[in-house]
Amino acid sequence: MITISIIGSGNVAQHLITEFSKHSNLEIIQVCARNPNALRNLIEAKKITSEFENLKKADLYIISISDDAIFEIASKLNIENQLVAHTSGSLSINILGHKNRRGIFYPLQTFSKSKPINFKNIPICLEAENEIDYKILTEVAQTISNSVFNISSEQRKSLHISAVFVSNFVNHLYKIGFDICKENKVPFEIIKPLIQETAQKVMTLSPTEAQTGPAIRNDFKTIQSHLEFLSDENQKKIYTTITQSIQNHGKQL
Amino acid sequence: MITISIIGSGNVAQHLITEFSKHSNLEIIQVCARNPNALRNLIEAKKITSEFENLKKADLYIISISDDAIFEIASKLNIENQLVAHTSGSLSINILGHKNRRGIFYPLQTFSKSKPINFKNIPICLEAENEIDYKILTEVAQTISNSVFNISSEQRKSLHISAVFVSNFVNHLYKIGFDICKENKVPFEIIKPLIQETAQKVMTLSPTEAQTGPAIRNDFKTIQSHLEFLSDENQKKIYTTITQSIQNHGKQL
Repeated sequence: MITISIIGSGNVAQHLITEFSKHSNLEIIQVCARNPNALRNLIEAKKITSEFENLKKADLYIISISDDAIFEIASKLNIENQLVAHTSGSLSINILGHKNRRGIFYPLQTFSKSKPINFKNIPICLEAENEIDYKILTEVAQTISNSVFNISSEQRKSLHISAVFVSNFVNHLYKIGFDICKENKVPFEIIKPLIQETAQKVMTLSPTEAQTGPAIRNDFKTIQSHLEFLSDENQKKIYTTITQSIQNHGKQL
Repeated sequence: MITISIIGSGNVAQHLITEFSKHSNLEIIQVCARNPNALRNLIEAKKITSEFENLKKADLYIISISDDAIFEIASKLNIENQLVAHTSGSLSINILGHKNRRGIFYPLQTFSKSKPINFKNIPICLEAENEIDYKILTEVAQTISNSVFNISSEQRKSLHISAVFVSNFVNHLYKIGFDICKENKVPFEIIKPLIQETAQKVMTLSPTEAQTGPAIRNDFKTIQSHLEFLSDENQKKIYTTITQSIQNHGKQL
């Protein structure tokens, strides 16, 4: 049995609370959050505290709050020489200060509050400063996921940037596609299987092998006619920027 | 039984030949292609011709060649007043000239030669100039797909542009993510579940609801640290362009 204290009440914290609660070898003994209202349906009220100076003893403290607040909150906790891990993709393990033993517990996924998540296939990137702490993190991670990796702070940062491209930016391109459909009174449903197949293709092909479309074919006529069709300056700018990037860099393996 | 003649030997033509061959109510009576070698494993040699002036009688002629060549090839065919459809996303029905009855048979999907396709879920966009022709196209389309739509040339063009954003451009962002992982010696495998979940999310949420990440949070510190981490000027340019677009337009519903 590993006892866990969670600090935070945002997207990731909520999904972790829900997930940890399912497993008998993990026990959430406390959740600490400034905004306890968000947690009401996830955990018993008596386990919730809003005071960072009032934490109970646990095997692992997971700080899952916005990047900006991690340094300050980590220094405020009333614990010393305990295992404290954060869940941020972009911040180094050093942000946690020197009061405690430090670790990283970074689930690489896009979390929306309204959509349940199956953790089994979510990669969890771990980092710790000694073997015993790494074992504790590994046991927790392997309880919820089949995909656990030892990743340094530097590598994690590169993963996070890569994730911004393949997830945040990709979703914004979905939004532009959505807007174009809407403006032309075409149901977005028609485009959905293409979104799925495009994602599915790179499960087995490399993105370079999978690239299709007017840019990689250097089909200037089609590119020109698309740019003439688009009236939104922002959409035109993105079209031009990515088309040039595909033409200049799309073929490099 | 509907008899079909296919003109072309590229990606889409090959997938259509493979698919049509599976259904007993469709018969491919001829395939016409300049490069018959590409078709050797797909259809009997005696059904292949390389002469556009030598077509046999069929209920439906499908021209599936590069956009640039459609006008010329359509005018060369030795048929008159027959039903001729093209499979291009971006070209109007008018490109087919006036010799024949005109139609569109546009499967909205990304086709790679090396990856088999399940047509059942691929939307097929149809257009015809009279009811009888539309019925023929519908029967063919419904034989291979559960998702058949009546779409005008103008709407089809907007769909095609939307498809460029959600598929071609998205795949290029996958490539950038792939390159960043490779450069930092992180396996691309770690990022794959995120790619799938990002696509999956917009099956039920709107892209606006699904948007996460530093840009939509106006998390300038993270954005700045990402830009400092990236050394490739092209990656930086795309990062900046899409981040600004998310900040200015990402919240509009």
